[in-house]
Amino acid sequence: MSYAAFSHEIARINDILCAVNLMTWDARVMMPPGGIDARGKQIATLVGLARELATGDALQRAIEDARAELAGLPASDVRVLAVEQAAQSIGALARISAALVGEAAELKTVAQAAWAKARAANDFAGFAPMLERSMEMQREIAAALGGGEHPYDALVSTYEPGMTWSRLQVLYGELRQGLLPLLAQAREAKVRSEILERAYPVEKQREFSSLLSSRFGYDFDRGRLDDTVHPFEISFTRSDVRITGRFRETWLPGGLFAVWHEAGHGMYEQGISEAFSRSVFTTDFINLYAVGGASFGTHESQSRLWENRVGRSRRFWELHFDDLRQTFPDQLDDVTAEDFWRAVNGARPGFIRVEADELTYDLHIMLRSEIEAGLIAGEIRVSDLPEIWRDKMKAMLGLDVPDDRLGVLQDVHWSSGMVGSFPTYTIGNVMSSQFFAAACKDTPVVQGLETGDYLPLKTWLNDKVYQFGRSKTPSQLLVEATGSDLSTGPYIADLKRKVDELTA
Amino acid sequence: MSYAAFSHEIARINDILCAVNLMTWDARVMMPPGGIDARGKQIATLVGLARELATGDALQRAIEDARAELAGLPASDVRVLAVEQAAQSIGALARISAALVGEAAELKTVAQAAWAKARAANDFAGFAPMLERSMEMQREIAAALGGGEHPYDALVSTYEPGMTWSRLQVLYGELRQGLLPLLAQAREAKVRSEILERAYPVEKQREFSSLLSSRFGYDFDRGRLDDTVHPFEISFTRSDVRITGRFRETWLPGGLFAVWHEAGHGMYEQGISEAFSRSVFTTDFINLYAVGGASFGTHESQSRLWENRVGRSRRFWELHFDDLRQTFPDQLDDVTAEDFWRAVNGARPGFIRVEADELTYDLHIMLRSEIEAGLIAGEIRVSDLPEIWRDKMKAMLGLDVPDDRLGVLQDVHWSSGMVGSFPTYTIGNVMSSQFFAAACKDTPVVQGLETGDYLPLKTWLNDKVYQFGRSKTPSQLLVEATGSDLSTGPYIADLKRKVDELTA
Repeated sequence: MSYAAFSHEIARINDILCAVNLMTWDARVMMPPGGIDARGKQIATLVGLARELATGDALQRAIEDARAELAGLPASDVRVLAVEQAAQSIGALARISAALVGEAAELKTVAQAAWAKARAANDFAGFAPMLERSMEMQREIAAALGGGEHPYDALVSTYEPGMTWSRLQVLYGELRQGLLPLLAQAREAKVRSEILERAYPVEKQREFSSLLSSRFGYDFDRGRLDDTVHPFEISFTRSDVRITGRFRETWLPGGLFAVWHEAGHGMYEQGISEAFSRSVFTTDFINLYAVGGASFGTHESQSRLWENRVGRSRRFWELHFDDLRQTFPDQLDDVTAEDFWRAVNGARPGFIRVEADELTYDLHIMLRSEIEAGLIAGEIRVSDLPEIWRDKMKAMLGLDVPDDRLGVLQDVHWSSGMVGSFPTYTIGNVMSSQFFAAACKDTPVVQGLETGDYLPLKTWLNDKVYQFGRSKTPSQLLVEATGSDLSTGPYIADLKRKVDELTA
Repeated sequence: MSYAAFSHEIARINDILCAVNLMTWDARVMMPPGGIDARGKQIATLVGLARELATGDALQRAIEDARAELAGLPASDVRVLAVEQAAQSIGALARISAALVGEAAELKTVAQAAWAKARAANDFAGFAPMLERSMEMQREIAAALGGGEHPYDALVSTYEPGMTWSRLQVLYGELRQGLLPLLAQAREAKVRSEILERAYPVEKQREFSSLLSSRFGYDFDRGRLDDTVHPFEISFTRSDVRITGRFRETWLPGGLFAVWHEAGHGMYEQGISEAFSRSVFTTDFINLYAVGGASFGTHESQSRLWENRVGRSRRFWELHFDDLRQTFPDQLDDVTAEDFWRAVNGARPGFIRVEADELTYDLHIMLRSEIEAGLIAGEIRVSDLPEIWRDKMKAMLGLDVPDDRLGVLQDVHWSSGMVGSFPTYTIGNVMSSQFFAAACKDTPVVQGLETGDYLPLKTWLNDKVYQFGRSKTPSQLLVEATGSDLSTGPYIADLKRKVDELTA
């Protein structure tokens, strides 16, 4: 009965956090403008309740009773694992005060609205006070969590267990060394990037990207696709996993690849073992999310895998370009599959992270990551951000940022209080190549990719990654599936092979 | 501090119930089919938590401390009122066990899905076991609540405080006596009802009905209109109040009047005093809803007032028919304002309650009300319902019901566990005429109605009804605004005047 009581309490917490997820989705996709303030209070209440239950005496007793009940079972037993994982995360959560959690949750909704308004008006100064408050709160949270050499470590590791600013700097160094020469080489590639900027009706973009998402294996009976400002995926258990996109008529890859990216996240959530629904293994107790991935980086590896390793591959467009041309016959009548593959892989330094190509994407991340590490350490002031952003963009990508909409105001993350999450995008990129290389040692996977049958790949990922939810660490998943821990080799090799082909 | 602690606890309960409202809206408007089961569990968890907080020791202590703090203040003080109203409702709630509440909440989501499926397939037998479970649960709830001479009384009074089966039978008797002769007389009216069945594109219906809803005073910055199977209004505080409609191309009034009906509900919620947000006066503790009306009947009086007293009035169509004809020039080129007014007021006995005219609507209610009183008393069996429904439709309206989709399967209420709520529709009809007659003693209101300026009427209703939320009883509102308690006189007079005009 004790383990049952434990599971029941965890299920209730997960239900509350699924309700928070729905309120978040609604706030960003459906809610009328007047609803913002009340929604912020409602989310704060529910997050506060989830925290109360998670850190309350009842669950603590249930954990102790469950430990007694399960005594003697091996540490690998899934129930033992659930109890110990919960105990550990809840310990970290308990170090952050309820007042701080509630305030952060309330601020998030209000700050997101302020960000959206400031972004529309190119008014960084109007957003700065909210950002200042968000950063103060993040510094308080980092101090409460403690641990690590750098204050940023405490925040990063809530998204990516075990990751530190010092490890990141090594990772960034390897990537800089690997990527910058490729970026220079890629500039020599002959790419007709203007073909992506023709007028592609949005409705047909949505249809085409949905169709391919279904072929990948995203299940629309347990999901839906809506429009939003900043695409995201969110789940309310594996049975209802929603994705959003942002389509622009004159920038075709922006819409298509964002949908496949989010569908990749979605398939991960839809693929988690049904036994893990409403469990420890679909609950992030520290950040108080209902979410099923092993880490943010692992989650991102699955979106990047479908977006880039599959969706930007040469074979993919050999197989599907005819369908795309049937969808847009006038726009693509002078374009070949080879032209199109080249265009969607062209290195094209730009202002917007979510539209960045593979060779520049990680540079966008390093920029943000360095800035937020500096903000958290108190070495950078919010008021200096627009200028710092401009300087770094110039230095890293050689671009002059014309306004803050294309600069410091482009991302929702800081207004959401998600400081420390940006590095997980790059970690995800690196992991995506590791998982994909391992999957491609499986003959049915390779045959499927050759013929446009994505079921073998999805099945491989389901077996090696999806099903486990948070019951394994990123390192465990990587080592068991690929034979090695986080490593930049396969990622740089993938990009090198591509650039070589583009410039052959 | 004690009253503050009380208010804080109530606000949290209201927030949870607003989240439940959002999950309910989403389940009926947005959710993919796979999400049903998980959503049922999530709603059950949140309703259970709301109940735990409402019946828990912390709130009980806060109530007692608040009573001590407020001792000596008059019973009319809004804080005293809040504390005593909460204490009373929570006492009733506490008589229903947590297990029963949770089970009912979970059943609701599953049963609604079974109902929607059975309705689509005209398969009453497939829905009957769910309905049987719903009714058993309602009988248990009635027994737990206790009180009243008839077991139905306990359920009815959760929606309409003070109402009983015996009072309803008197009300129904007066209405039958008043309405049946009018229905016979109305059959003589010359009405071109076929003009309503032409092909009216749904998108334009939505635009026209939205436009007029805005003119009435429904605020789209704090609301939105979506499509659904069964139209409803739902609020997540006064700042986010959503309505849904169901448009059919070949039945114009079905769409228009349903939207104005729901907009009437919506204006009530949007008009509640801001001070009452997240308070006792926007929380129905017994049914565990976040809702702001004095009673279901009072709420319905406001929807009916805008739908029927305003939207079906002769002057309304004299003022707005030209706009409608500009919206549908081909469909209405041979139709006059007078023709249209007559058509939307024609007595046209039909199968569907939500599309019924004013003269037959209450007969639909009496049928349902008699059936559910019989079901709760154990005098009617679920398996006999289709036949009983057919017999009563034949006896009351002279119609032969061709299938259960047009009969016993048409309403969502029983699958939602809302037994005892149907009578409130008729109570609302009766009250709508009382409030409207009183408002029409006000010169600016009458002048406004004459010129198509609805602000004075909305302001009157705001002053007399909306702003108070649940802080006054239906009787108080009626007596203070109209000088008399519930009375069928004004309603029957309104209908008689209309029928006389239609047959003059």
